[in-house]
Amino acid sequence: MTKILAINAGSSTLKFKLFEMPEETVIASGMVDRMGLPNSKFKVKYGDGQQYLVNQDIPTADMAVDLLLKALIDLKIIGDYKEIEGIGHRIVAGGERFKESEVIDAASLKEVRALSDYAPLHNPAEADGIQAFMHLLPGVPEVGVFDTSFHTTMPKMNYLYSIKREYYEKFGARKYGAHGTSHRYVSHRAAEMLGKDLKDLKMVTLHLGSGASITAEKDGKSFDTSMGFTPLAGITMSTRSGDIDPSLVAFLQQKLGLKDPQEMIDILNNESGLVALSELSPDMRELEKTRETRPQSQLAIDIFVNRVIKYVAGYIAEMGGIDALVFAGGMGEGDPKMRQRIIDGLSVFGPKLDPVLNDVDTVERVISSDDSPVAMLLVPTNEELMIARDVVRLAHLG
Amino acid sequence: MTKILAINAGSSTLKFKLFEMPEETVIASGMVDRMGLPNSKFKVKYGDGQQYLVNQDIPTADMAVDLLLKALIDLKIIGDYKEIEGIGHRIVAGGERFKESEVIDAASLKEVRALSDYAPLHNPAEADGIQAFMHLLPGVPEVGVFDTSFHTTMPKMNYLYSIKREYYEKFGARKYGAHGTSHRYVSHRAAEMLGKDLKDLKMVTLHLGSGASITAEKDGKSFDTSMGFTPLAGITMSTRSGDIDPSLVAFLQQKLGLKDPQEMIDILNNESGLVALSELSPDMRELEKTRETRPQSQLAIDIFVNRVIKYVAGYIAEMGGIDALVFAGGMGEGDPKMRQRIIDGLSVFGPKLDPVLNDVDTVERVISSDDSPVAMLLVPTNEELMIARDVVRLAHLG
Repeated sequence: MTKILAINAGSSTLKFKLFEMPEETVIASGMVDRMGLPNSKFKVKYGDGQQYLVNQDIPTADMAVDLLLKALIDLKIIGDYKEIEGIGHRIVAGGERFKESEVIDAASLKEVRALSDYAPLHNPAEADGIQAFMHLLPGVPEVGVFDTSFHTTMPKMNYLYSIKREYYEKFGARKYGAHGTSHRYVSHRAAEMLGKDLKDLKMVTLHLGSGASITAEKDGKSFDTSMGFTPLAGITMSTRSGDIDPSLVAFLQQKLGLKDPQEMIDILNNESGLVALSELSPDMRELEKTRETRPQSQLAIDIFVNRVIKYVAGYIAEMGGIDALVFAGGMGEGDPKMRQRIIDGLSVFGPKLDPVLNDVDTVERVISSDDSPVAMLLVPTNEELMIARDVVRLAHLG
Repeated sequence: MTKILAINAGSSTLKFKLFEMPEETVIASGMVDRMGLPNSKFKVKYGDGQQYLVNQDIPTADMAVDLLLKALIDLKIIGDYKEIEGIGHRIVAGGERFKESEVIDAASLKEVRALSDYAPLHNPAEADGIQAFMHLLPGVPEVGVFDTSFHTTMPKMNYLYSIKREYYEKFGARKYGAHGTSHRYVSHRAAEMLGKDLKDLKMVTLHLGSGASITAEKDGKSFDTSMGFTPLAGITMSTRSGDIDPSLVAFLQQKLGLKDPQEMIDILNNESGLVALSELSPDMRELEKTRETRPQSQLAIDIFVNRVIKYVAGYIAEMGGIDALVFAGGMGEGDPKMRQRIIDGLSVFGPKLDPVLNDVDTVERVISSDDSPVAMLLVPTNEELMIARDVVRLAHLG
């Protein structure tokens, strides 16, 4: 048995899951919240629903990791630090450098930091997390698992924007996509469930969470994806606009009297999407509850579904067909009505949903009827497990 | 017989066509070029291929119109100003105010100017053109024909962006689309050619010129269109980027050290698209000629086709099917290979092209084979004729 930590560090959070491999069981999970801010706290779930909560100042990633490791000992989740044989880190931006998950050393850690331009809030925090474990668990292999790696197989036709070549060559302005670990996990799992080789399937995977992206997969590889240079692009999301006419950035900045164009991008990332359309909530569950009484809630739902089906249809056309459509992420897994609406919107492709199989929340299963020309699946995503598996594979453990 | 002038005024050009209605024959056409700039010139084509060319300073729209009217008399194209019974003007931005073409008076002319925010280069010039004719041909009805009117039937779901409602309510930030007069002309003509009622057809019309847009039409109305708040959005164009991750506007502005975000938008409008991808030319004919020797030319073609098919497929899905696909505009009409590529890219919908019928340049015809589930048509667009027809209809002439 091998214990592997999967870490997801953000600018003020550090989430973890401790896996026992190869059993793939989670023996503890938790997070540091408000790291570097007032009122930080640390929470662990373990055992038979046991919880452990600490409120104390946690100013740095080093402190957070130290607290985490000590708690694992104190709570008798592990007996010795040596039991942790590998650590995997989710990293948002891997650019064109990281085409696969990779064991991180001092040199590649610098490269992770150097990619901060593409994920200014995430990469520095993730690098800090890696470094903290280097200090506290020296010698334990750390593996970087990049959100973008899965999409590095996209053809030029799909990753290049129709802008000057030098913007790509000098500044890296291209489509990178995101949620790659999720799309990778669910597409592999869907192929397994169908008993087919992933390489033989044309697949569209929908990761529909508060951030949401859609990926076209062909020959077992990402062929196209809806997020772009950043996770702002693509479909309508909880608080992100998705695609808009780029000229609106300048127009609205001027109308709003904003000095820095980044302020406009922040609004498009944080105050747009479902919450802006509904004028109520970024959470689809709230919109679902209120859609009969609030036209704005219904409109937000309609726009979300519309943008999803346009992307999916475009991907089906550019792949020249579709064998499997996979739903994942909070809404993709937990909202049967949303799945129904999306599939209804794709009626031109003839998908046949089994309404009984579909009427379930987050249970892995095929949801299409036997005679559907397109297999449809609900696959709860598991990015942390994918991270743990990558650690085992790349650090040659277990 | 009724003579109608169709006018298309830009910031430094004023194009005209003089129609004889209801015969719909063009008896003269021409343009003022470099109006308000050094070396302006004025050109008229008339009769049996006769040409008339003047080089002289033409500082204002009033001067341009005066020159035009005098030339029509001098060249004996008309015997008296009174023969011109109506004038139609193409106007780029009609906002939500102009849902149809309309006879323009002093009050509505003010409204045309007030919409200049949405087309800063075009609406003021077009308003100047209208005013010049008011001065020089007082009492002759002038009709405004708006690029955006046709698209005012789009449902909220398609014209709203996923941004704060107040940006729409206060600043008019929504999708307006463009090329409406062209999409309206070719869709009506396509229905006539098929002997069907436009209202019964689900149609996608492709206006593929140096500016290019795609429209979904259902129930005889525009349901969705690829251009957006401005004509920058949508597919890759000759010099326009089409859709990009909006965050690239701020990122590139900062990288390039530009002070005004509008400078970035100007680059996206004027130095992007095919010319940027190919590093050669904004003209598809040049890319076609060089595609075997220059990978960048081939890539630009591939990206153009890819963006077109993704839009068309999205529109087919959201309409729940397609009865007719219509090609218009310079490339749509004149490039059989481009039509072939686009149709190949839509193979998932089963369209069958007749390669013999398709092998033609700008000849109105059906190009699909009899057993194609989707009718495909080549319809040379004629925005000026549509303008002349609108003048006859709305000014109750002939």
